[in-house]
Amino acid sequence: RIAEMAKLTQLIDNEVFRAYATYATIVLLKMMLMSSITAYFRIRRKAFANPEDVPPGKGENAKKYLRTDTDVERVRRNHLNDLENIVPFFGIGLLYALSGPELSTALLHFRIFAGARILHTIAYLTPLPQPGRGLSWAVGYVVTISMAYKVLKTGLYL
Amino acid sequence: RIAEMAKLTQLIDNEVFRAYATYATIVLLKMMLMSSITAYFRIRRKAFANPEDVPPGKGENAKKYLRTDTDVERVRRNHLNDLENIVPFFGIGLLYALSGPELSTALLHFRIFAGARILHTIAYLTPLPQPGRGLSWAVGYVVTISMAYKVLKTGLYL
Amino acid sequence: RIAEMAKLTQLIDNEVFRAYATYATIVLLKMMLMSSITAYFRIRRKAFANPEDVPPGKGENAKKYLRTDTDVERVRRNHLNDLENIVPFFGIGLLYALSGPELSTALLHFRIFAGARILHTIAYLTPLPQPGRGLSWAVGYVVTISMAYKVLKTGLYL
Repeated sequence: RIAEMAKLTQLIDNEVFRAYATYATIVLLKMMLMSSITAYFRIRRKAFANPEDVPPGKGENAKKYLRTDTDVERVRRNHLNDLENIVPFFGIGLLYALSGPELSTALLHFRIFAGARILHTIAYLTPLPQPGRGLSWAVGYVVTISMAYKVLKTGLYL
Repeated sequence: RIAEMAKLTQLIDNEVFRAYATYATIVLLKMMLMSSITAYFRIRRKAFANPEDVPPGKGENAKKYLRTDTDVERVRRNHLNDLENIVPFFGIGLLYALSGPELSTALLHFRIFAGARILHTIAYLTPLPQPGRGLSWAVGYVVTISMAYKVLKTGLYL
Repeated sequence: RIAEMAKLTQLIDNEVFRAYATYATIVLLKMMLMSSITAYFRIRRKAFANPEDVPPGKGENAKKYLRTDTDVERVRRNHLNDLENIVPFFGIGLLYALSGPELSTALLHFRIFAGARILHTIAYLTPLPQPGRGLSWAVGYVVTISMAYKVLKTGLYL
C-alpha cells in the first residue's frame, strides 16, 4: 500500500500537475463562491425560488417572496457561465497537464485562465461596462482551446 | 501494451482512488437520474419546453403544452444545484485522491458528501421543510472545501 | 524531473487513455461551441440578458433589447443539456479509461457517445422532429451508464 501511495504521489509531485491542481482548485472554489453569493442576495433581496425557503411567519405575504430579482438573476447567470467555462478548463486542462507540456507554457495557460475568470466575475457583478466582461470571457475561452489543440496534437487517437 | 495497462490499473488498485472512483460514480449517476425525473414530470404534467416535444395530434391545443410547471421547475433547480456542487466535488475530489490522504479520512469525506447529496435530493423533491435542504447542501459544500484545503496544502504551486 | 515527466507521459501514451483524451476533448469543444452560438443569436436577434450588453446609442429603445428570444433559449437549453450529459461522460469516462477496459470496447463507447451528442445538437438546433433528439440523448445516456457499470464492477470500494 505504501508503494502504491508513493506512485500516486509522484503525480502530485510533478510540477506541471501541481500547478494544474492549484489553479483548477482555485477556479473551482471561485465557482463555488457563486452559490454563497446567490444565497446572500436571495436573503437580502427576499427573492426565493421555493415556497419552503420563505422565512416562516409571513402569512399572506409569503407568496410575494417567491419572485425573481435582477441581482439574484445576475449572480445566477454568472454562476452558469462559470459552469460553461470552468468545466471545459478542468477537463481539457487535466488532459493537457498529462500531455507533457513545458512547465512555463503550462503555468502561462493556467495563470491567464484563472486571472481571466476572476476578472470576468468582477466585471459581471460590478457590473463593468462592456467589453470588459466579453474580453475576459474570450481570453479564458481561447486559453482552453489552446490547451485542447496541444492535447489533440500530442495524443490524437480516433 | 500490457505493461502500460498494468501501470494504469495500479491507479484503480489503489484503495483511496478506488473509493474516489466509487463515490464519484455514485454521485454522477445520481445527477444523471435528474434527467429521467425531469422527463417523467414533463410527460406526466404535459409541460414541454420545445414545440417538437409535444405529442402529435393535439391540433390547436399543442401550444398550451408549451408551459412551465412548478414540479418540473423544482426538478430542474435540483439538477442545476447538483451540477453546481457535484462538479466541484468531482474535480477537487480527484485532485484530493491524488494528494495522498489517509484512506480513513478520504472515505469519511466521500461518504459524507455522497450521503449529503442524496439527502439534499430527497429534501428538494419531497419537499422537506427547511433547514433540511439547506443543511444537506452546506455539509457537501464544507466537505468539498476541506478537500480543497488538503490539495492546496499538499501541492500548492502558483 | 525528466523521469517524472516520463512517467506522466506514459498515461498519454496508453492507447485507451489517448482515445479517452481525444473524444473527451472533442465533446468538451463541442459544448464550448454552444457559447459562441448563443452569442451569435443574441447579437443577431438583438436579445440580451444584461443591460450593459445592449449596443450603445439605442437611447429609449435600449430596454426592448433586454428580452428572451425563442432561438436563443433553444441554444441555451441545448447548452445546459450538454452540461448535464457531457460532465458525467467526462467524469465516469475518465474512471472507466483507468479501469483497464479493452481498447476496442472503450473506443466503441467513446465513439458512440461523441456521435450521439453531435447528432443531439443537430437535432436540437435544426430542429428535427422527435424522436430524433430523444433517441440521441438516450444513446449517450446508456453509454455513460455502461461505463459506470464497468467502473463499479472493477473498482467498487464503499
